[in-house]
Amino acid sequence: MDFEKLSDIIKDENRIKIGTDIEDKYLSDALNRNKGKADVLIFPINTEEVSSIMKIAYENGIPVTPRGAGTGLVGATIPTRGGIILDLSLMKNIVELDENTLTVTVQPGILLVDLQKFVESKGFFYPPDPGEKNASIGGNISTNAGGMRAVKYGVTRDYVMGLEVVLADGTILNTGGKVIKNSSGLDIKDLIIGSEGTLAIITRAILKLIPKPKKSISAIIPFNSLKEGIDTVIKIIKKNANPTAIEFMESDVIENAERFLKLKFPSDRGKAYLLLTFDGDEEFEIESNYKKVKEVALENNALDFILLDKKDDIERTWKIRGALVTAVEAVSEQEPIDIVVPIDRSADFINYTKVAEKEFGIKISSFGHAGDGNVHLCVIRNGMEENLWNEKSRKLLKALYRKGKELNGLPSGEHGIGINKKPYFIDVTDKINVEYMRRIKKAFDEKGILNSGKSYSI
Amino acid sequence: MDFEKLSDIIKDENRIKIGTDIEDKYLSDALNRNKGKADVLIFPINTEEVSSIMKIAYENGIPVTPRGAGTGLVGATIPTRGGIILDLSLMKNIVELDENTLTVTVQPGILLVDLQKFVESKGFFYPPDPGEKNASIGGNISTNAGGMRAVKYGVTRDYVMGLEVVLADGTILNTGGKVIKNSSGLDIKDLIIGSEGTLAIITRAILKLIPKPKKSISAIIPFNSLKEGIDTVIKIIKKNANPTAIEFMESDVIENAERFLKLKFPSDRGKAYLLLTFDGDEEFEIESNYKKVKEVALENNALDFILLDKKDDIERTWKIRGALVTAVEAVSEQEPIDIVVPIDRSADFINYTKVAEKEFGIKISSFGHAGDGNVHLCVIRNGMEENLWNEKSRKLLKALYRKGKELNGLPSGEHGIGINKKPYFIDVTDKINVEYMRRIKKAFDEKGILNSGKSYSI
Ligand SMILES: Cc1cc2nc3c(=O)[nH]c(=O)nc-3n(C[C@H](O)[C@H](O)[C@H](O)COP(=O)(O)OP(=O)(O)OC[C@H]3O[C@@H](n4cnc5c(N)ncnc54)[C@H](O)[C@@H]3O)c2cc1C
Ligand SMILES: Cc1cc2nc3c(=O)[nH]c(=O)nc-3n(C[C@H](O)[C@H](O)[C@H](O)COP(=O)(O)OP(=O)(O)OC[C@H]3O[C@@H](n4cnc5c(N)ncnc54)[C@H](O)[C@@H]3O)c2cc1C
Repeated sequence: MDFEKLSDIIKDENRIKIGTDIEDKYLSDALNRNKGKADVLIFPINTEEVSSIMKIAYENGIPVTPRGAGTGLVGATIPTRGGIILDLSLMKNIVELDENTLTVTVQPGILLVDLQKFVESKGFFYPPDPGEKNASIGGNISTNAGGMRAVKYGVTRDYVMGLEVVLADGTILNTGGKVIKNSSGLDIKDLIIGSEGTLAIITRAILKLIPKPKKSISAIIPFNSLKEGIDTVIKIIKKNANPTAIEFMESDVIENAERFLKLKFPSDRGKAYLLLTFDGDEEFEIESNYKKVKEVALENNALDFILLDKKDDIERTWKIRGALVTAVEAVSEQEPIDIVVPIDRSADFINYTKVAEKEFGIKISSFGHAGDGNVHLCVIRNGMEENLWNEKSRKLLKALYRKGKELNGLPSGEHGIGINKKPYFIDVTDKINVEYMRRIKKAFDEKGILNSGKSYSI
Repeated sequence: MDFEKLSDIIKDENRIKIGTDIEDKYLSDALNRNKGKADVLIFPINTEEVSSIMKIAYENGIPVTPRGAGTGLVGATIPTRGGIILDLSLMKNIVELDENTLTVTVQPGILLVDLQKFVESKGFFYPPDPGEKNASIGGNISTNAGGMRAVKYGVTRDYVMGLEVVLADGTILNTGGKVIKNSSGLDIKDLIIGSEGTLAIITRAILKLIPKPKKSISAIIPFNSLKEGIDTVIKIIKKNANPTAIEFMESDVIENAERFLKLKFPSDRGKAYLLLTFDGDEEFEIESNYKKVKEVALENNALDFILLDKKDDIERTWKIRGALVTAVEAVSEQEPIDIVVPIDRSADFINYTKVAEKEFGIKISSFGHAGDGNVHLCVIRNGMEENLWNEKSRKLLKALYRKGKELNGLPSGEHGIGINKKPYFIDVTDKINVEYMRRIKKAFDEKGILNSGKSYSI
């Protein structure tokens, strides 16, 4: 590879690492399970550098793996084909807060936590709220991250108004803008959102904000069984009570996280819990909404309705919710799954996991975004012998993805496909869809240098 | 052309018209200004027929112009290259109302008015509300129609959850579904939305509904000048009063529509008016919102704040609003423009139209969606001699589109590009964007048979 040309662009040697100088963490993702190989790791600081690097990569057919904060769960940042890792984390400026159009323009490397803090300090609100706050916005956009507040506010896609991207051959393209409506040719912006770095490098984003809701409360609803809890979700949704989030979790997963964090969950009455948030500007609005939910819940075998209105209780509870996966991982290797089904099929899907658990003899923890049908599963290894685990877990995963499809679901709600889920994605996705995704890829990246081999891509 | 094969598919001769049997209206659009030519007009009744027709068209390289209700304003349904007109108007069934997932599944030919009536009769609400209620949903999706309620509820794109489409070669493809989150490969659905029939034929759509708001009121705010009215809009938006719609119009346009409809607008105090709607479930919520607006308005030189809470007043007012274009058209040929700019640049843009009016000596009426930056202009011929009109109006249009771009706007907010706006769209759009749109088109329609020549397409 032609390192000299790259070093001509990136003169600061702290921003270009070659061969064995590349730290291991850059060769993997958040699960840190598989490791790739790369020739060079580059930290560009502006769009022009990204463009110049891509020009060289394109001319020489060098594979490029874009990387944000590396928190991904599907192996999409693993450089499976060598070449360049393009780490966008230094491009983390807030370019502009535009109070008139309620937009913020940022570079892709800014972390979600920093963006949220910044806009909230100015009285605004960026609603997408995936569990991992140390992810970058570029990564969030590339996975179309969802998170807790999707029930009320939607997902990352709904807040991306415009993008500046660098294409495979180094060309800079702008799509969308600070406009609310658009019917001006094909929608390139939405094609790039969720494309896991396979079509273009995102170098700037215009994000939509809303005014910060003045009040927010949470509530915990314990049930005697998961089934009762999950069956109640659809009834809550039909009550039109506008909750911001509806999460569910079982007691054993919570206990595990309690041990991990050395924190106490506000209730131990249930086998399963719903955790909700309500926000808004007016007390009466929030109250009228949570009262509707309380009524439905108590009519449907809820053991209690615990309102959390103290900052401390709310924070502790959501901290426990936020740590569920990490706490599982601390105990055992696990395979994370975020199959999404229509909201009224969540209960069917979770019930099936109970059947599958027994059939395959592998423990499955389920929790997550009950309010939008985006169940999260941890398929837990629990010390199973490697070959057996590989064989059995693959069969189990295949069965779970097929069940998801049978229920009119899709393989991923918000984490993406990457390499970990690729075989299952290919298994349950219509051939014709994969074919057209590949055609689009080819239209954008004829030489296949941009994160190829991930998701739908060959 | 091989009519026999087509007649083998469509045996009912009422559903296939050949050559001169094709009525003129099918050769044009709502403006009925230009007329194309076609060999055959077909009315399929199901997806399989569409697929079979497309297979024949593809094999034989026959151009196909998809058509909904023919209400488009940009010439996108004009068959400029002969071949087949594929009219989807008979495919107008409601396939399913799913109360659990708050979705309705429809065939593309159903009219907006019929869909709205149906879902509202069941207690649901389909928020997109473009002025023309006799458009088809397939047409609305293909133009990403916006309309009045976009300020609060967004545009058609935001309500399309899944699509079944027939591709250029006759293959049937399903994208999206009844799921709220999706990060499963590339987003083909959003690519097809707004593509003006250039990528695929929409044969079925899953649309998102919301519960019907229990109450809705409107308000009229008269001002002494358009400038005062428009300057107030951004102040209203920043008040966070959540209006459903904010429309603006000048008195002369209203008077014209009053004459046309023989109806009286509820106020004649102003030179310009804002017309707003507020909806919601609770009286106090609506009241608290409109009071915020009233306060801002009166602080900013509004002459009055006229609350419309009687059904009759509301209907009459919106009927007048709805007829503005038609009333202009009844008097003179006009060129409709729906340039969209960031909301805080609407005033700049409208002020520029006043300058341009004088400079080019052509009357421009402006009105429309003030709340989302989607100003609508009628550039009015007023009997100008044809050659002069052609020359002058083209220059004026070019100047307007360039101004839109200068203000970080885009050529169309909701009507699409078609053929009428194509030269201006090409003039103000980055070459690289047009090029990638064409690449995508090629990936979908190698032979260029699907509505080619429209919008970005060669
Ligand atoms: C504990 C935990 C909890 C989580 N909870 C949620 C949740 O509730 N909801 C949810 O949706 N997700 C959740 N996630 C996943 C999270 O959303 C993703 O990890 C995150 O979006 C990735 O951001 P990143 O900056 O780390 O990107 P990376 O992991 O670095 O990259 C992710 C993908 O984006 C690409 N990419 C990154 N930046 C760019 C760019 N600038 N241009 C082009 N491509 C780029 C990469 O190539 C890769 O394909 C969770 C993850 C963890 C670890
Ligand atoms: C008086 C008036 C007021 C209007 N006000 C508004 C407004 O406020 N907001 C707004 O957004 N728009 C407005 N419009 C425009 C309106 O939204 C469009 O005319 C409408 O969306 C087109 O629908 P249609 O069924 O008539 O489609 P057509 O005009 O028949 O076709 C429009 C385009 O869609 C394609 N198409 C149609 N059906 C399909 C299909 N099934 N598959 C693939 N392609 C298809 C056609 O090829 C063409 O490119 C207005 C129009 C009029 C006449």
